[in-house]
Amino acid sequence: MSIKIGIAGYGNLGRGVECAVKQNPDMTLAAVFTRRNPEDVQILTEGVPVCRIADAAEWKDKIDVMILCGGSATDLPEQTPALARMFNVIDSFDTHARIPEHFANVDAAAKEGGKIGIISVGWDPGMFSLNRLYANAILPDGKDYTFWGKGVSQGHSDAVRRVAGVKDARQYTIPVESALEAVRAGENPELSTREKHTRECFVVLEEGADAAKVEEEIRTMPNYFADYDTTVHFISEEELQKNHSGIPHGGFVLRSGKTGWDGENSHLIEYSLKLDSNPEFTSSVLVAYARAACRLSQEGVSGCKTVFDIAPAYLSEKSGEELRKMML
Amino acid sequence: MSIKIGIAGYGNLGRGVECAVKQNPDMTLAAVFTRRNPEDVQILTEGVPVCRIADAAEWKDKIDVMILCGGSATDLPEQTPALARMFNVIDSFDTHARIPEHFANVDAAAKEGGKIGIISVGWDPGMFSLNRLYANAILPDGKDYTFWGKGVSQGHSDAVRRVAGVKDARQYTIPVESALEAVRAGENPELSTREKHTRECFVVLEEGADAAKVEEEIRTMPNYFADYDTTVHFISEEELQKNHSGIPHGGFVLRSGKTGWDGENSHLIEYSLKLDSNPEFTSSVLVAYARAACRLSQEGVSGCKTVFDIAPAYLSEKSGEELRKMML
Repeated sequence: MSIKIGIAGYGNLGRGVECAVKQNPDMTLAAVFTRRNPEDVQILTEGVPVCRIADAAEWKDKIDVMILCGGSATDLPEQTPALARMFNVIDSFDTHARIPEHFANVDAAAKEGGKIGIISVGWDPGMFSLNRLYANAILPDGKDYTFWGKGVSQGHSDAVRRVAGVKDARQYTIPVESALEAVRAGENPELSTREKHTRECFVVLEEGADAAKVEEEIRTMPNYFADYDTTVHFISEEELQKNHSGIPHGGFVLRSGKTGWDGENSHLIEYSLKLDSNPEFTSSVLVAYARAACRLSQEGVSGCKTVFDIAPAYLSEKSGEELRKMML
Repeated sequence: MSIKIGIAGYGNLGRGVECAVKQNPDMTLAAVFTRRNPEDVQILTEGVPVCRIADAAEWKDKIDVMILCGGSATDLPEQTPALARMFNVIDSFDTHARIPEHFANVDAAAKEGGKIGIISVGWDPGMFSLNRLYANAILPDGKDYTFWGKGVSQGHSDAVRRVAGVKDARQYTIPVESALEAVRAGENPELSTREKHTRECFVVLEEGADAAKVEEEIRTMPNYFADYDTTVHFISEEELQKNHSGIPHGGFVLRSGKTGWDGENSHLIEYSLKLDSNPEFTSSVLVAYARAACRLSQEGVSGCKTVFDIAPAYLSEKSGEELRKMML
């Protein structure tokens, strides 16, 4: 029987979930929910209704898993607990400091409804977290490194756009290759913020804006850029559209550690992602965990979970026998 | 309370488990079991008894998890089911074609004893398998690649040693860098055996042996070398000892896949290991899964499992709260 998926929120992430559902033959898109006027929302899948999120309760028995595609700042802290009372839910909540609070809220709501909620699913938090956990469990005597990029940081792009005189902008986070190489060489370096990543900005100026002033303001911006080596390029609007309209991202999780009676042997575990589309990859992870949520719910599991709590086999549509034969 | 570990079989792997137990503060080595005369076996940990494996039953209530460190060819098919009747067990069974049979035998035995048995734990099968599963679940439209090395292949080294005129030898399996790069570039190449790996042999000749004849015999050996580009170096016994006495290994698991409504975006997931000591790394994975076995057993779980069936959190000594705070 096909797993019936609901999408709550139809931006880049929601559209990514829609595409990922299409790739998974054991799933069907049941409905898309939006805060906008449903008539203004055009989705890709034919014959699937777009509904008001306020009417979600009417879909209680018609959706196996609701995938929440809102933002972590204001949408998910409200929506995930609210919907977890009625549906199995998956979200990509990524405000690290607020995870304990979010976990507790979703846990209480999901238990109340006898549902399961898997939070903070994606690649970081998500696949990167899993790799940190596995690597730490295997190499207790070691050191962790996470590098992000090369990729577009939405938060930093927004910060540049807020600078007076900037019409549009795109910011790339770039890992420092020599730092990565030092980690790979087992040197266990202590790396400052500046030594790990550089930042590159592509900026379209408003007419008459002072380029030197804009550049100075960007490079010295506290929190966002002051602690980094930042490069600013001024380009035309056409060039921004042509060469910088994608949303690529990626990164590296490494752990180097020692084994042996006297720690005489070194090991390096490295996981990396190179993604053409950050939201579509995140969506693909969300959809795999939706399969897990559906199965765990059928087994009677309820409450809040993270990727740490889900046995990998639940993510695959293959049976245990098939997995052991094909992938072990 | 400390997890009491037993080691069955004291070769490179058993010694690696002993070292790994020392690195994990929540574990204690209870006893080492051997088929040899216990008086002939010198272990590293002070005050821990070495016992006959035939007397293992006497330790039934004094060991939480028995880690089996024998070989897959003849030891584990017998030992794992036999010991799973009395103990929670972990093994590194890696004869792929016989996994279904081994799984069934261990499952029956473990259920009979109310114990848990986790088989095929290590890095391949093991961590590489996990990465294949996760990557396949996330990117259903994609292609898998596994490369091994650079590292010592015990089986191939043994094969070279069996050639007449060879006194000692070490064989390295080496991934072809250009093939790896083609995969990383998203080219989805179809790669033959020869295109994926090369083999490099370091050979010490018996006195008076014919080097050209030995080299020819190695390079044309069916299954082991005929399908590969093989390089043979003749070196002195001293040089072999000095430069080739380690047991390094490693490798790469990659999946490249597409997302988007028309598969317009490409993604690459890559996991790699660079290991100074193949047996010590494998041992470290075994020990992490021993922790999982102990906890699952306390929850009443029994029967045979693989890495696919174990939620990652069970591998870590940290609590759910700590994991969410530190690693999510």
